Amino acid sequence: MQQTKKVAVIMGSDSDLPVVSAAVKQLKEFGIPVEAHVMSAHRTPAQAMAFASNAKDNGFGVIIAAAGKAAHLAGVLAAHTTLPVIGIPIKSSTLDGLDALLATVQMPSGIPVATVAIDGAKNAAILAAQILALSDEGVAEKLTAMKKDMTEGVLKKDAALEGKLAAL
Amino acid sequence: MQQTKKVAVIMGSDSDLPVVSAAVKQLKEFGIPVEAHVMSAHRTPAQAMAFASNAKDNGFGVIIAAAGKAAHLAGVLAAHTTLPVIGIPIKSSTLDGLDALLATVQMPSGIPVATVAIDGAKNAAILAAQILALSDEGVAEKLTAMKKDMTEGVLKKDAALEGKLAAL
Amino acid sequence: MQQTKKVAVIMGSDSDLPVVSAAVKQLKEFGIPVEAHVMSAHRTPAQAMAFASNAKDNGFGVIIAAAGKAAHLAGVLAAHTTLPVIGIPIKSSTLDGLDALLATVQMPSGIPVATVAIDGAKNAAILAAQILALSDEGVAEKLTAMKKDMTEGVLKKDAALEGKLAAL
Amino acid sequence: MQQTKKVAVIMGSDSDLPVVSAAVKQLKEFGIPVEAHVMSAHRTPAQAMAFASNAKDNGFGVIIAAAGKAAHLAGVLAAHTTLPVIGIPIKSSTLDGLDALLATVQMPSGIPVATVAIDGAKNAAILAAQILALSDEGVAEKLTAMKKDMTEGVLKKDAALEGKLAAL
Amino acid sequence: MQQTKKVAVIMGSDSDLPVVSAAVKQLKEFGIPVEAHVMSAHRTPAQAMAFASNAKDNGFGVIIAAAGKAAHLAGVLAAHTTLPVIGIPIKSSTLDGLDALLATVQMPSGIPVATVAIDGAKNAAILAAQILALSDEGVAEKLTAMKKDMTEGVLKKDAALEGKLAAL
Amino acid sequence: MQQTKKVAVIMGSDSDLPVVSAAVKQLKEFGIPVEAHVMSAHRTPAQAMAFASNAKDNGFGVIIAAAGKAAHLAGVLAAHTTLPVIGIPIKSSTLDGLDALLATVQMPSGIPVATVAIDGAKNAAILAAQILALSDEGVAEKLTAMKKDMTEGVLKKDAALEGKLAAL
Amino acid sequence: MQQTKKVAVIMGSDSDLPVVSAAVKQLKEFGIPVEAHVMSAHRTPAQAMAFASNAKDNGFGVIIAAAGKAAHLAGVLAAHTTLPVIGIPIKSSTLDGLDALLATVQMPSGIPVATVAIDGAKNAAILAAQILALSDEGVAEKLTAMKKDMTEGVLKKDAALEGKLAAL
Amino acid sequence: MQQTKKVAVIMGSDSDLPVVSAAVKQLKEFGIPVEAHVMSAHRTPAQAMAFASNAKDNGFGVIIAAAGKAAHLAGVLAAHTTLPVIGIPIKSSTLDGLDALLATVQMPSGIPVATVAIDGAKNAAILAAQILALSDEGVAEKLTAMKKDMTEGVLKKDAALEGKLAAL
Repeated sequence: MQQTKKVAVIMGSDSDLPVVSAAVKQLKEFGIPVEAHVMSAHRTPAQAMAFASNAKDNGFGVIIAAAGKAAHLAGVLAAHTTLPVIGIPIKSSTLDGLDALLATVQMPSGIPVATVAIDGAKNAAILAAQILALSDEGVAEKLTAMKKDMTEGVLKKDAALEGKLAAL
Repeated sequence: MQQTKKVAVIMGSDSDLPVVSAAVKQLKEFGIPVEAHVMSAHRTPAQAMAFASNAKDNGFGVIIAAAGKAAHLAGVLAAHTTLPVIGIPIKSSTLDGLDALLATVQMPSGIPVATVAIDGAKNAAILAAQILALSDEGVAEKLTAMKKDMTEGVLKKDAALEGKLAAL
Repeated sequence: MQQTKKVAVIMGSDSDLPVVSAAVKQLKEFGIPVEAHVMSAHRTPAQAMAFASNAKDNGFGVIIAAAGKAAHLAGVLAAHTTLPVIGIPIKSSTLDGLDALLATVQMPSGIPVATVAIDGAKNAAILAAQILALSDEGVAEKLTAMKKDMTEGVLKKDAALEGKLAAL
Repeated sequence: MQQTKKVAVIMGSDSDLPVVSAAVKQLKEFGIPVEAHVMSAHRTPAQAMAFASNAKDNGFGVIIAAAGKAAHLAGVLAAHTTLPVIGIPIKSSTLDGLDALLATVQMPSGIPVATVAIDGAKNAAILAAQILALSDEGVAEKLTAMKKDMTEGVLKKDAALEGKLAAL
Repeated sequence: MQQTKKVAVIMGSDSDLPVVSAAVKQLKEFGIPVEAHVMSAHRTPAQAMAFASNAKDNGFGVIIAAAGKAAHLAGVLAAHTTLPVIGIPIKSSTLDGLDALLATVQMPSGIPVATVAIDGAKNAAILAAQILALSDEGVAEKLTAMKKDMTEGVLKKDAALEGKLAAL
Repeated sequence: MQQTKKVAVIMGSDSDLPVVSAAVKQLKEFGIPVEAHVMSAHRTPAQAMAFASNAKDNGFGVIIAAAGKAAHLAGVLAAHTTLPVIGIPIKSSTLDGLDALLATVQMPSGIPVATVAIDGAKNAAILAAQILALSDEGVAEKLTAMKKDMTEGVLKKDAALEGKLAAL
Repeated sequence: MQQTKKVAVIMGSDSDLPVVSAAVKQLKEFGIPVEAHVMSAHRTPAQAMAFASNAKDNGFGVIIAAAGKAAHLAGVLAAHTTLPVIGIPIKSSTLDGLDALLATVQMPSGIPVATVAIDGAKNAAILAAQILALSDEGVAEKLTAMKKDMTEGVLKKDAALEGKLAAL
Repeated sequence: MQQTKKVAVIMGSDSDLPVVSAAVKQLKEFGIPVEAHVMSAHRTPAQAMAFASNAKDNGFGVIIAAAGKAAHLAGVLAAHTTLPVIGIPIKSSTLDGLDALLATVQMPSGIPVATVAIDGAKNAAILAAQILALSDEGVAEKLTAMKKDMTEGVLKKDAALEGKLAAL
């Protein structure tokens, strides 16, 4: 049986961890092997490039990259691999995340980055799982289950709403 | 041998075709079977929902959705499938594409849309190919070849630059 | 005598309740029957669609929908009904509510959403009352009274201003 | 039998007519009596105020107001009536319509304006029809028919797509 | 000798007072007679209009108007007077003041509003003083003195900087 | 009898003339003496500073300054005078005028610039006239006449509207 | 005597040439040796990295990098050199240059990019000359001359203004 | 041996010191002589102009200027010198720093300002060092060392990541 491919979660700075850890957690819940690194497009470009260049041969199926401000990390990794690269724009202390969003999503023709919402770490993990699920039935089943759970969670919250509103 | 999964290219309006056709073209060049539709999250919601719900069983691996303004199409399709959904925000006559970008990328937790640049139809196709390539060596080879071609294209343009600058 | 039609207040997540409860409260003050639900365009699309499709037959006159980020809820409900749908864009942790505003208001031709200000829950309720008041004289009288109260409230604050400024 | 209430279409300048005429046209197609005026919140404030103050007594059910730049027209009309007021932000030569959108939609508590998309004149008319349809079965039937036509229109365009793509 | 004309400081809501009080204070420091009011373009339009229409005859020289969100107050006052109207856009809980700025400054041709920075109440007062100073030598002298004081204040802060930096 | 004070119209570049000429024209129509110059905060700072420093003594009552991009001109002139300075942000080839607007209006405490709309040259002239009119009855009468003309102009356009709409 | 260091002008695509050529031209007018290349952070990352890594040893003093959309080029070059890197954000078909500006200027701590205005190619060249002039008296003299020429140019335009305005 | 040129760090207000001190500190760590001042383009324009005009003769090599809101300081200094001027846009209480960024970076042709990120004081210092390093081998060595330290810092954080993630 084919082994589930690994997902890499790369963050530009360890200060991104409080946001990014949601991606690691979600991937673990899906049972997807995950490897996390702090790597910078600007401070450790050689490591970033080497990682991306070898990612496919090293058993990775998807790379998730999170960075703030002029967020080049996802694009730089994407330049060195044909694996799908998912970008998480991180909100920093100015401009409310708009800079990271535009710097991640507006990639030039030829090198796409699959961008999720600002600080959308959990969705990055789900997207990675959706990608792997195309050739991994186990992950596919977990996605289907999660989708059902989500629906039920909303239904429960809807059922609980009447009580909350009674006090108004 | 496993057959290459199909890619669906859904556009919210046939006025999006001049932009979106670049995705169809690129997918055909990769030899990936593609099926294109005009479907609207708002005008033909039943059709959109039915398409997304059955897409996996109908042999699709990835759904690409293009829409402008309050671009709900990609998100609505993603609500009904666990397949990866790629969103192309389309620039319309006001707000320079910012509305479509935000309406596509800022998805709530649980339902990601893999967003590419505004009007980034070609990149949507390449991203779809990267996803399929994880389990399709033929597509993987075409991606590697395209990446090499791109590099060579830039090198050629660099070589031609001197001539263009001589006239300055 | 014709019975006052009901207003539905739908929120995309129960975390929107602190903002949205102002709408429920205002509707109750107008004596308008209100029914509130947590429903998601993405997590419980079937429920959302069923609700909207049957809303008119179930005695609703207006649907109010509140959602944040890529706020598709109002648009998705509007796709399944000819009732007027009022959208409240909810401010979330990034982009200061601009994403929800654009995703709610920039609807394509054919499917309008009557959008109020970001976090404008009270105004959504007043707008719903204005709509119902066209065929419900009791609500019309309450609106006229509220408008008079507002005027008097401002006049009182104006009268109290001198005292507050004396300390400067 | 109750007569269909009139809809007023007020524009801040006759230069808005190329956009706003789509609202007048759509209302006429619905068989809704429409009265159009050029009125300015700033240049003819007395006329605007008088119109709004008397609109209900003069048989109007809904007021549509279109204005560009610092678009105060809809809000100023709404200040003088309890009728629902629909605002159409008009794109002008700078800022791509963002100014008119924010000046129309971000109304303070107490005085809502039901805002549609920038240059969204047709949707303003449909929204007015949806409001009137609550107490006017004839309009309700026309809305249902229009919705069906829209769906069929998209389906036809979908059917025609294959031919257009064959040439790629 | 001609008496100094009065300045009116109008705010849309008494919640604007913490920002707007800086204007009142500055005007008092200049010895300019000031009259402050809470008036709303939307909640007390009749009062606002009456105030503006009579302001010139009542001895006012300048009107300062402060409002947030879809800030129509300054424009509505300007519609009813030929006195110069100064607008202070107030930052509210969403959009960081951009909405109030655009709704104040982007006035259509014919009705200018002299707009100062978001929350720029002190500058509104200085601008009012500059306007009155054209025909009031006493105010002119106070402005010149204030300008000199400002310069000296910066020079003192510059002199004190060395000490603050020594600790670095 | 007191002579009407002069208005200076300063533009940062003669490429701004097509927009700025509307201010010169309007001032001439008011019979206000106007002097126009090309001066740059960055390219001829000495001239700009000298002009502003001496403007009051040279008989000017108001300075209008028009500039695009990082529009420093109005602020730099305001730094050297206590005359009221009116800023016209000019739209240039990028960013749709937003840069010039923010660089003109967001002045720090102490040095206001009375900012009008992007490309709002005519309103700058009217604002200058409103300022001069405080001590110049002749200008005041012209403003009142212009306001009446504006109202009549809109009324005429309103009267002509029916004909234009008949063709729809 | 020390030789003038070279300036590299790197553009992300040869479609940037119409804008970027102004930088090459200006550098030539200063007599600064210039070498121009098409290189892409994403399509030819190896070439870009090699160029930046060796630029200092190859006699370059400054690198100018121009790119549009998610403009990573300047940042990626800066990651591989301690030479000053000047970034020119290029306006492309969507978002009016804002994306390129933010992706260029919002660099994380440690790796600055000296950013000039959107499409500001000429200023990039002048900035490069200012940097080289610190150790190159010949360039310093040319900068002083250019500054004087600019001043005279504005003065001439000012002198010509009267004639242009006479026709108004 | 040539002495290291001085760097001036000018801030528009001493309230900018908490951000700007990072630049002073970094320059001291590089052993670069630094002189800091509070100077305002608007409140002490004469001092600012005099400082910039004499900076080159007084032994400065680079001027760093930090200002918020309509940040004119860097541009005004650049108008009076041919030294490279680095601008730090400072985030203030409204608009999240966007105003200062645009007012700093969008300089007109002829007068560049080398703009760094909003609140990017440390990068301003590094950029100044990169500029001085072209003719100062001592600074060049310190930059190379800092770059190596940065890389090692990231590698250490990467090594420490596993421990932090184990708790998830």
